[in-house]
Amino acid sequence: MRTSDFPLQTVKETPADAETASHQLMLRAGMIRKLAAGLYSWLPLGLRVLRKVERIVRDEMDRAGALEVLMPTVQPAELWQESGRWEKYGPELLRFHDRHNREFCFGPTHEEIITDLARNELRSYKQLPINFYQIQTKFRDEIRPRFGIMRAREFLMKDAYSFHQNQESLQGTYDRMYETYTRIFSRCGLNFRPVTADTGSIGGSASHEFHVLAESGEDAIAFSTESDYAANIELAEAVAPAGDRPAPGREMELVDTPDAKTIQELVEQFNQPITQTVKTLIVQADEESETDLVALLVRGDHELNEVKTEKLPQVAIPLTFADEEQIRAAIGAGTGSLGPVNLNIPLFVDRAVAQMADFSAGANQDGKHHFGINWGRDLPEPENIADLRNVVEGDPSPDGSGTLTIARGIEVGHIFQLGQKYSEAMNAKVLDENGKSVTMTMGCYGIGVSRVVAAAIEQHHDDKGICWPAGLAPFQVAICPMKMNKSHRVREAVEQLHDAFESAGIEVLLDDRNVRPGFMFADMELIGIPHRIVVGERSLDEGNVEYRARTATENSFIPLDEILDHIKGQL
Amino acid sequence: MRTSDFPLQTVKETPADAETASHQLMLRAGMIRKLAAGLYSWLPLGLRVLRKVERIVRDEMDRAGALEVLMPTVQPAELWQESGRWEKYGPELLRFHDRHNREFCFGPTHEEIITDLARNELRSYKQLPINFYQIQTKFRDEIRPRFGIMRAREFLMKDAYSFHQNQESLQGTYDRMYETYTRIFSRCGLNFRPVTADTGSIGGSASHEFHVLAESGEDAIAFSTESDYAANIELAEAVAPAGDRPAPGREMELVDTPDAKTIQELVEQFNQPITQTVKTLIVQADEESETDLVALLVRGDHELNEVKTEKLPQVAIPLTFADEEQIRAAIGAGTGSLGPVNLNIPLFVDRAVAQMADFSAGANQDGKHHFGINWGRDLPEPENIADLRNVVEGDPSPDGSGTLTIARGIEVGHIFQLGQKYSEAMNAKVLDENGKSVTMTMGCYGIGVSRVVAAAIEQHHDDKGICWPAGLAPFQVAICPMKMNKSHRVREAVEQLHDAFESAGIEVLLDDRNVRPGFMFADMELIGIPHRIVVGERSLDEGNVEYRARTATENSFIPLDEILDHIKGQL
Repeated sequence: MRTSDFPLQTVKETPADAETASHQLMLRAGMIRKLAAGLYSWLPLGLRVLRKVERIVRDEMDRAGALEVLMPTVQPAELWQESGRWEKYGPELLRFHDRHNREFCFGPTHEEIITDLARNELRSYKQLPINFYQIQTKFRDEIRPRFGIMRAREFLMKDAYSFHQNQESLQGTYDRMYETYTRIFSRCGLNFRPVTADTGSIGGSASHEFHVLAESGEDAIAFSTESDYAANIELAEAVAPAGDRPAPGREMELVDTPDAKTIQELVEQFNQPITQTVKTLIVQADEESETDLVALLVRGDHELNEVKTEKLPQVAIPLTFADEEQIRAAIGAGTGSLGPVNLNIPLFVDRAVAQMADFSAGANQDGKHHFGINWGRDLPEPENIADLRNVVEGDPSPDGSGTLTIARGIEVGHIFQLGQKYSEAMNAKVLDENGKSVTMTMGCYGIGVSRVVAAAIEQHHDDKGICWPAGLAPFQVAICPMKMNKSHRVREAVEQLHDAFESAGIEVLLDDRNVRPGFMFADMELIGIPHRIVVGERSLDEGNVEYRARTATENSFIPLDEILDHIKGQL
Repeated sequence: MRTSDFPLQTVKETPADAETASHQLMLRAGMIRKLAAGLYSWLPLGLRVLRKVERIVRDEMDRAGALEVLMPTVQPAELWQESGRWEKYGPELLRFHDRHNREFCFGPTHEEIITDLARNELRSYKQLPINFYQIQTKFRDEIRPRFGIMRAREFLMKDAYSFHQNQESLQGTYDRMYETYTRIFSRCGLNFRPVTADTGSIGGSASHEFHVLAESGEDAIAFSTESDYAANIELAEAVAPAGDRPAPGREMELVDTPDAKTIQELVEQFNQPITQTVKTLIVQADEESETDLVALLVRGDHELNEVKTEKLPQVAIPLTFADEEQIRAAIGAGTGSLGPVNLNIPLFVDRAVAQMADFSAGANQDGKHHFGINWGRDLPEPENIADLRNVVEGDPSPDGSGTLTIARGIEVGHIFQLGQKYSEAMNAKVLDENGKSVTMTMGCYGIGVSRVVAAAIEQHHDDKGICWPAGLAPFQVAICPMKMNKSHRVREAVEQLHDAFESAGIEVLLDDRNVRPGFMFADMELIGIPHRIVVGERSLDEGNVEYRARTATENSFIPLDEILDHIKGQL
């Protein structure tokens, strides 16, 4: 391909409203253009990359025996009413009426449609297991679409749904999909981690997210330095500290702390080690509790984990912090002076706090703290001990092997054992070996195809632009001729090279624009082509071309007649 | 591929609500399933065919230098307001509000979006001409979706849009697209015709439709027996009969025709040749005319062409027939007795009628006709002569070469010179050679990708099922083993054959179901696989397999070790 037939739409300036590297670089490289909030057009360069992801996904899904289908984007409300999600889904579901005033939505996912298809097409256990997938446009009406295609409203997704006679069969397909996702993201050249994930309101069943590791990732994931353990921080268990609680070492004292409203201020003003401080957080209690409020204790340097906390039956869902007025009415002090001693509402204590001795906390009187608090002496032994906090770097791994490291990740895939949630609601049954009607068990498996493109850039870029992994690069090789317009030799050499690469099935982009070398190099680096060949009179005099890999900093001189083999060797 | 990995979803019964062959066969073959009115899911077998059409289209568009992009399906109202189509488009445009109450639509076409993209990306004449295309889901809220995917609401379309500095450049790309469409439909194995088409309200510019010829087609097209002339019947010119008008041969007489309200009754009761009768049709006049009504004369056996008639400036758009009451008030007689003699409203005369002598028509008195009417003697020579009728089989071709044949067609493609309709409304300009800002000229080029699948079936089927052209077949070869479960030899032979075909890159489906031969054959014929190989003990004894092409009626015996080459030779 030549730039004269495949014009680049690069721009020099970093767009003002693009915050993340991938969003900035996709705009600058001319991969996408914004149409409206959360709606993007893919330009030819971007689409080449998107299609590569799509092809890898299709190839591996086919290899895994999944069957490709294509369901409509427009879905009738009736099926969503049958599953119960029409009411529950909220404003992310784009709803509308057709000309006959019937209700429809633009599918954000296809559980209802595939379950309807399956209950009509599948009659016997002999047809199971079966795994259908599609690669298709979805729409989720995000309240704040952001980061370009990373969190767009319209996006390309691979969604798969499997149907089974029992849990054992589901587990088999689930494992196969786990392997398939591992193959897909490996072929995309991504550094990723499958992590155990929260199963949300369904509970019980297994679920894994696949995260591309990148500092800009919206999710935090924890993994072991020694073992395969990896989990979304929402789920990663913070185990109790090893050993017994230390014995009390000092008396409890009541201290005036008029200017210490936060843990940080307490630490700074009174020389308290932060690991000896305790935060007291007051949240709304579950409707069925005897009290309105519940107190949660976590160590001063730890963060409350909302997902874990919501699993306490005594806590209201969604987790809702009490306001100052409520707190003052119930406890008689403000948020800056709360603590467990003489507290008159139910108390839930994080595992780490239950092991502390001589700790500091508010005294439930404005402007006062207790220092040197000890369980069993200054207040009763904790009754309700739970895992309430996010794990931190260095925590022991819950599988007992090594310690935890925290990394940021971008979720690009999610596999999920749905169980019978949809098949039961929608009466999707088959006959078993004995002619008995049984409800099918389901799994679902998603990949954010367009998001993979952005995630790859977040992981693979430098200050000059994108550094595509080979599997996703829009072109493998860039040929940059020096003064092609003036030198017949250069023109002839680059045309021959171009044709040789194309004949070898290697995607090449010959920059035949009449622009200066620096401009050409900057564009090729910006769009991230892995291999660059510069052809000029000077190097041709020696029979050479200049070669540089995108991630290298130095050129090497390679004989013109060896460059094809040289690059073949690298691919 | 084996049916155990690629299960067929064939059904025996013809679905009750499917009227056309393609709709019936796509349901019976398990290619599609209906989700709701005009909304279909593609099952794996159907999707294989759809993807083949898509691949051919992409391949040829790329070859023609078009650049693939992907624009959102969800489009903001603002751009449609800018082009003026938000108001004009009518209820086929599916409109909705997002969660922030902003107006959007599901794109039925993308002129507005691409023009917006072009005006932002294109700055200079040096970037022109350029041709963008996409293959993407569209939605048109048809009032009566029908014939399965032939006229569905959600469908897959290839739409392309080209931008030019001038008309000459547009003509070049237009011609290239004409050739490209010809290549695409040829590679699909379709018998098709490009026909000149009406350009509708835009007028003036060129437009061609590509029709797949099939008896069930919704459109009538006229083409010459001798030349390349072909046109949609809406547009095909009915030329004036050759030679002079015959001289009058009889006197005009007023005849009582109390029971002849229609041409048919007149012909039957009074032994009038239908070619000597004339129909008088009364329609609403254009607002600016001096009269309310206008009369149109066509020969008794001819049909009024509404598209041509609407081009008369004196006629109201849309064409509206006057009702009985209006006619009686203006003329004093009912619709069954109208004619041109002593008619008091403006008269437009079809070319054929202007050449008639001694003809019959109503006398503008109830129950009476004139026989033997002659122009210039019984009424003035016709003043307004126009082409008002549909051409019929045997009419002279307008290009002077041969006569016209009428065939039914299914429109699968449309190329169109848009001119500056959108670029002007949306201010899409570039700088020309002199630095002057000029409005771009546009073309657009559509293919109904999903409709091609249905059209191919309409053209290629028999009473047993679909007969796929090679380019679209989901599999090229079916292998049907006889009693594979009982014969080790048969199993071994079919497995080897299967692997040999796959290694040769030929798509093969091995039917490894444990069903009786008749059932197997019926399914393979229904789904339309072009080549069938039957392997059984009996023929293996002779070293043979049984071979039959889908469209043949007899088997031939071919040595097992030659069958691969035999089929390779046919592909």
